[in-house]
Amino acid sequence: MLGRTYETQNCSAARALEIVGERWSLVIIRHALFRDITRFGDFQRCLGISRNILTARLDWFVEQGLMVRQPHVDGSAYQEYVLTDKGRELQPVIVALTHWGDRWAAPDGPPVVLRHAECGGQVRQHTVCDDCGEQVTIDAVEADPTAHRSDTATHG
Amino acid sequence: MLGRTYETQNCSAARALEIVGERWSLVIIRHALFRDITRFGDFQRCLGISRNILTARLDWFVEQGLMVRQPHVDGSAYQEYVLTDKGRELQPVIVALTHWGDRWAAPDGPPVVLRHAECGGQVRQHTVCDDCGEQVTIDAVEADPTAHRSDTATHG
Repeated sequence: MLGRTYETQNCSAARALEIVGERWSLVIIRHALFRDITRFGDFQRCLGISRNILTARLDWFVEQGLMVRQPHVDGSAYQEYVLTDKGRELQPVIVALTHWGDRWAAPDGPPVVLRHAECGGQVRQHTVCDDCGEQVTIDAVEADPTAHRSDTATHG
Repeated sequence: MLGRTYETQNCSAARALEIVGERWSLVIIRHALFRDITRFGDFQRCLGISRNILTARLDWFVEQGLMVRQPHVDGSAYQEYVLTDKGRELQPVIVALTHWGDRWAAPDGPPVVLRHAECGGQVRQHTVCDDCGEQVTIDAVEADPTAHRSDTATHG
């Protein structure tokens, strides 16, 4: 199984969604990232999803290199699903979703606060310009497809 | 139709995914944000999806307040779907997905570069601590559910 939903889209966001856009995918990754869950049974208990969906997602994550399946560190017969760097680096996506949900879908206030482990402060995402160092507002971000076109020309 | 997939999850990321986690949702929002697309026919051409899926997504976005449906500015019979602040603020989610895809799912290099409109520099997302101002690494972000519990207690 290879993601084929967004085949027509030449865009990294679409490529990312081919890998983690299926239902439950990012919620599973979130539990691995923030609740340190690694065992099938623990994922199932926390998520309350069917074994076959969970199996499909975890197998896909292993196939795509977001997780590795390995014997449990305690030496038991259980296997662990452990995030790789590729999986862990989805964290900014989950932080961004969390902040959006806090702002627009949490009428009783944020159910969970994301904190800096060292000082306990709340973390926030800033969009910053590599060149001028300014914090960039939503309207000031442009998508520039020329990078790809010139790259294609160079290699063509 | 209300999102009910992640009902058991008391988490803003899951709440966000109830609203924008369906197939094509974030790709449609991306086209509205970065390609300034507003018309049904233009979305359909760029995305190559069926009319009924596109209709369902746009109707849902209007219902959820991510877009407003309004007469086209040129006075034609066409309607426009225009992002609200709620919709526009999904931008960091899409930037984060794009960066992850650039890094892990773009073997030929990023197809599109996100730039700061004012100076042309590439934009990047930083996770920053509100209290100490430090840039926070992936491992140094913790999810703290106590905020909610104490809040509930106060209101209970």
